[in-house]
Amino acid sequence: METILTPPTLANVEEARKRISEYAHRTPLLSSKQVNQKTGGQIFFKCENFQKVGAFKFRGASNAIFSLSKEEATMGVATHSSGNHAQALALAARLRGIPAYVVMPENAPKVKVKAVKNYGAEITFCESTLQARESTLEQVVAKTGATFIHPYNDARIIAGQGTAAMEVLEDHPDLDMIMAPVGGGGLLSGTALAAKSIKPDIKVIGAEPANADDAFRSFQKGELIPVQNPDTIADGLRTSLGELPFSLIRKYVDDIVTVPEESIIEAMRYVWERLNMVIEASCAVPVAAVFEQKIDVKGKKVAIIITGGNVDLDNLPW
Amino acid sequence: METILTPPTLANVEEARKRISEYAHRTPLLSSKQVNQKTGGQIFFKCENFQKVGAFKFRGASNAIFSLSKEEATMGVATHSSGNHAQALALAARLRGIPAYVVMPENAPKVKVKAVKNYGAEITFCESTLQARESTLEQVVAKTGATFIHPYNDARIIAGQGTAAMEVLEDHPDLDMIMAPVGGGGLLSGTALAAKSIKPDIKVIGAEPANADDAFRSFQKGELIPVQNPDTIADGLRTSLGELPFSLIRKYVDDIVTVPEESIIEAMRYVWERLNMVIEASCAVPVAAVFEQKIDVKGKKVAIIITGGNVDLDNLPW
Repeated sequence: METILTPPTLANVEEARKRISEYAHRTPLLSSKQVNQKTGGQIFFKCENFQKVGAFKFRGASNAIFSLSKEEATMGVATHSSGNHAQALALAARLRGIPAYVVMPENAPKVKVKAVKNYGAEITFCESTLQARESTLEQVVAKTGATFIHPYNDARIIAGQGTAAMEVLEDHPDLDMIMAPVGGGGLLSGTALAAKSIKPDIKVIGAEPANADDAFRSFQKGELIPVQNPDTIADGLRTSLGELPFSLIRKYVDDIVTVPEESIIEAMRYVWERLNMVIEASCAVPVAAVFEQKIDVKGKKVAIIITGGNVDLDNLPW
Repeated sequence: METILTPPTLANVEEARKRISEYAHRTPLLSSKQVNQKTGGQIFFKCENFQKVGAFKFRGASNAIFSLSKEEATMGVATHSSGNHAQALALAARLRGIPAYVVMPENAPKVKVKAVKNYGAEITFCESTLQARESTLEQVVAKTGATFIHPYNDARIIAGQGTAAMEVLEDHPDLDMIMAPVGGGGLLSGTALAAKSIKPDIKVIGAEPANADDAFRSFQKGELIPVQNPDTIADGLRTSLGELPFSLIRKYVDDIVTVPEESIIEAMRYVWERLNMVIEASCAVPVAAVFEQKIDVKGKKVAIIITGGNVDLDNLPW
């Protein structure tokens, strides 16, 4: 646990980049004249919704898994998650040919259970409390000897997530700003670490739902203030900020802004309609921040990381 | 009219490529492991849903407009269309700084009228019969001196649409097959012309809704058999095949296959869910043909042109 809670460095992101290049897609950067006209900036969308398993999470998960020693790897990996991290871990484990153990609450949506199963993970169901998930995970780890891979409070995960920003800066070394949503903080901290280390004068901005503004408040106050069961459509951002990501965010992020639910839904629909991409509500959060002028992008070259596209098409918010 | 009804050649596609390169996006090619596993082939999606105005139509329209002489251009361009061609023509005209006149039926969906207007075109409304549209267009042309740009029965349009296939073959010179949906035939004929001229042993396959199978029947019989008001969800493919596209399709296309409505909807939803792209029903037609094994893609490298993503999000077919 010692090493994975030591803050990663640019060198770790560079290693991650090499390590995962064979497995992860180099996702495209898309732009839209309409978005540029609407905002007065030059906005580039880094499309991690086209990443494997449909989310940036594959970067961190594959970096973590392919950096395990042979001995560790043989025993497999484990996590408790019902979201994109579980799918990403399951796929990365399959690519390395090792077992993945996923603890899921018994009321997890069937479609998510199916997806994780399809990627070949072994699922253990438990009651849907955090306590039950943690204790079940402990049992699984004790029984199998698998390595627990936390979805964001892990240096290997953070370094992996930072590779997206690295790709963006290779395409546009003169970028003025990069934005990402913030939930547990793995993506924002990796993005900030990579971007600021490569280009110290770049601005790094996090965006968060006003209804789940623990990162905003923690950032303002300088100490972690967790959130309890926040009510936001951006389900990927309901998690509270992790310690390790927070330490990097304090060091490298310039600002965190918040947006209301209506703006998130509106921005989400705008991207579906005008950019013809399926994006999760979570990715719409920084887009909403730009549309609502929470951040001034006029005349600036700005990248927004589009985090994923796993959406229930039978349950759209409009 | 003489020249625009002379079949275009590879040289015309190459000229188009140069002419529009400054204006059109070079769209990304995406792939999906899940699709490859499902089909046994290696499938590449050429994402024209990320093209300007959200459709491949911008390629042909901008090629036609930027190939006009200065004298012709000054008088503007005209068309009768309520779909993507009208938007594409309007935007391309604006980029050249010339007027665009679009004749639309008075019952055209407001969202389409608004889109065409937003691109700066002057709209003339008429009754919603083909006769009214044609006579109104004649009046507009007589009054303004604008050049009529047909959506597909035009060599400049066909050459422009062929540039998408040219880009695909630059990325993957060893491609075995390329597929496109067929409505009026502009895209399929341009694709076939470009692909077969560059790589004579490539297979070119058209895909059509079984409910609007005029191209299939025309291709089988060797003569144009128009279709009357076909009932298909693939609204971009309700048009009957044009003469000039048909002459090229007979020469260069290997086969045309048809798929039922249910398969189109299923394939459309699959692409939304697994590839996280918003695509029109029309683009799902070749995808459905592959999923339904109407075409054998096992072990083959296949490109499918994803034609566009202009969809009414309040009116989805599931």
